[in-house]
Amino acid sequence: MAALVAGAREGDQRCVARLVSLVEDASPLLREVMAALAPLTGRAHVVGLTGPPGVGKSTTTDALVRRLRAAGRRVGVLAVDPSSPFSGGALLGDRVRMGDHALDQGVYIRSMASRGHLGGLAWSTPQALRVLDAAGCDVVLVETVGVGQSEVEVAGLADTTVVLLAPGMGDGVQAAKAGILEIGDLYVVNKADRDGADRVRRDLEAALGLAGLEPGRWRPPVLATVASRDEGIDAVVAALDEHRAVSERSGETERRRLRRAREEVEALALTTLRERWESASGRGAPGEDLDRLAAGVAAGRQDPYAAADELLAAWAASARTAGTADPA
Amino acid sequence: MAALVAGAREGDQRCVARLVSLVEDASPLLREVMAALAPLTGRAHVVGLTGPPGVGKSTTTDALVRRLRAAGRRVGVLAVDPSSPFSGGALLGDRVRMGDHALDQGVYIRSMASRGHLGGLAWSTPQALRVLDAAGCDVVLVETVGVGQSEVEVAGLADTTVVLLAPGMGDGVQAAKAGILEIGDLYVVNKADRDGADRVRRDLEAALGLAGLEPGRWRPPVLATVASRDEGIDAVVAALDEHRAVSERSGETERRRLRRAREEVEALALTTLRERWESASGRGAPGEDLDRLAAGVAAGRQDPYAAADELLAAWAASARTAGTADPA
Repeated sequence: MAALVAGAREGDQRCVARLVSLVEDASPLLREVMAALAPLTGRAHVVGLTGPPGVGKSTTTDALVRRLRAAGRRVGVLAVDPSSPFSGGALLGDRVRMGDHALDQGVYIRSMASRGHLGGLAWSTPQALRVLDAAGCDVVLVETVGVGQSEVEVAGLADTTVVLLAPGMGDGVQAAKAGILEIGDLYVVNKADRDGADRVRRDLEAALGLAGLEPGRWRPPVLATVASRDEGIDAVVAALDEHRAVSERSGETERRRLRRAREEVEALALTTLRERWESASGRGAPGEDLDRLAAGVAAGRQDPYAAADELLAAWAASARTAGTADPA
Repeated sequence: MAALVAGAREGDQRCVARLVSLVEDASPLLREVMAALAPLTGRAHVVGLTGPPGVGKSTTTDALVRRLRAAGRRVGVLAVDPSSPFSGGALLGDRVRMGDHALDQGVYIRSMASRGHLGGLAWSTPQALRVLDAAGCDVVLVETVGVGQSEVEVAGLADTTVVLLAPGMGDGVQAAKAGILEIGDLYVVNKADRDGADRVRRDLEAALGLAGLEPGRWRPPVLATVASRDEGIDAVVAALDEHRAVSERSGETERRRLRRAREEVEALALTTLRERWESASGRGAPGEDLDRLAAGVAAGRQDPYAAADELLAAWAASARTAGTADPA
C-alpha cells in the first residue's frame, strides 16, 4: 500500500490506475490511501466538460489533452458515465481513440462507471480526482455524458465547467434552457463548420445575456471549435487558464473547493453512519426492518414519514442491544 | 388541512395543486398529509417518460393524455426538470400547450423543479406521485428531461418506463448505448415520418437483441409514433396496459414498488436524522463543524474519511450536550 501511494506520488501510471480502482471498488483501504494522499492534493485545475450526447465531448477532450501535453502539462482524464450503472464499458468505442496517449507517461485516462450507489458521481468522482491531483496532474478533465442531473453535479466538482453544444442536435436552445445557462464558465459550440453553428452561438449569447450577470462577475465566453481538426482549441485552453486565474484572485476557486469538500465530508459521514447501523444490527443492507417498513408503505398501511421514524428507532435500538456505542 | 385532504380524495384540482405545493416546499405539514393519504395510494399506474431533449416528450405526453382521457381514465402528469435547480419555469413554453387540458377536471398537470436538495427527484417526486395516486388518477405520467442520472431515477420510480428517441438527434445509437438499454420497458421512436427513423429503430432493436434478455422476461417492444399527428399513440397505450398486466402477474410491479418504498423510507430517515442533528447542535445547516472540517480537507490538512469521523463525533457530542436523546 505504501509502495502504491509512493508510486502514485511519483506519477507511476500503474500505481495511479490501481488507486483509482480501489476508489471504484469502494475498498476498505481507501481510508488509509486518502490519508496518505491528502497533503498532496489541491493543486490540479479541475475542468468539467459536459453537454448532450453527440456534441463531440470525447473529440474535444482528446484535442485538449494533446494541446495541454504539447505545453508540457500533465493531464488526467476522468470519463464519467452516470447513466450507465450496468455497462461500464459502454463508451469504450469512444475511448479507443484515446489510445494515442497510451504511451505518454504524462497522461492518465480513466473511464468510470458510477455503480448506482447513493450519490452517484458525488461519492466516487471526488476521490478519483484526489488520486489524479496527488499524482501531480496539472489539469484534470472530467467528461460526463448527458444533459441532466449529471451536469449540475459536474459543475459542483469542477473549478471550471465547460458546456459543449453543437448544431443539429435537435434544438440547441431547448437544451440551453434546460439548466445549462447557470453552470457554464465557458461555452463551446463545437462542429462550428456545420450549418446552424452561428445560430446556436447567437442563441446562446442572447440567452446568456438575458441571464443577468452581476457586474464584476466572470462573463462566460462563447467559443467556436472544430475539435476534429484542432480548430479553436488554443482559445479554449487560454479561456480555461484565464478563468482559473480570475477565480483564484476573486476567491471563487476557494469557495467552490470548500463547498465541494463540505458535500464530500457530509456524504461520507452519512455513508459511515449507515454502515455502522447495518453492522450493529447484524444484518446486511438494507435490513429486515427496512424491508418490513417498505412493504407497509407500498401497501398503503403506513405513510413514509412514520416508517422513517420507525426505522430510526429500530436502528438505534439494535445499536444499543448490540452493546455498541450510540450510532453516531 | 383535513378539508384539503378530503378535497383531494374527491379529485378537486385546487386541493391537489395545494398538496403538491406542500411537497415542493417540503412543508412540515407533509407528515400529516402523507398519513392521511397513505390508505388511498398504490392504485395508479406510474409511467415514466424519458429521452434526450428534442425527441418530443411533451408532445407525446400531450397525445397520451388525450388518448387516455378519451378512454375515460383520470390522468396525472408530473413534468420533472432535474437539470434546472434555478429556473423552475424553464419549460413553461412546452407546458403551455397543455393548456388544452386546463378545463378538464380529469387531468392534473404539474411541472416540478427539483430544488437542488439532496437526492433531487428521489425526495419530492415520490411524494407528489402519492398525492396524484390518492386523488384517484388511473395513470400518472412522469416526464423527465435529459439523458443521464435522471432517467435511471425515473426508471426507479415508475411501474413502466418509456424511453423516447427520434431521428436526427445527433447519434441515436450513442444515446442508446449510454444507459438506456437497461431501463426501458417500452421504446418509442417518435418523429417516425422523418429521415433516419427506420435506422434508429433497427439500431435500437439490434442493440436490445444483444442485451441478452432472460427467457420468459418481458421483451421491450420498439414502437414508432408521430406524436404531433397522434399517429401510433393507440399502440403505445396498448403496450403500456400490456406491460402493466404482465408485470402484475409476474410480481414485477410489487418488486418495483417495494424497492421504491425502501428508497423513499431510507431517504426520509437520513433527512430526519440530519435535521435532528442540526437542531440538536443549535446551529443552522451545514454547521460550523462541517465548515471547519471542509476547510481542512480543501487545504489538504485532513483526509475526507477522518473529517467524516470527526463530524459524526461532533454531532453526537452536541446532541448529548444539548441534553437530547441520542441522535437516532
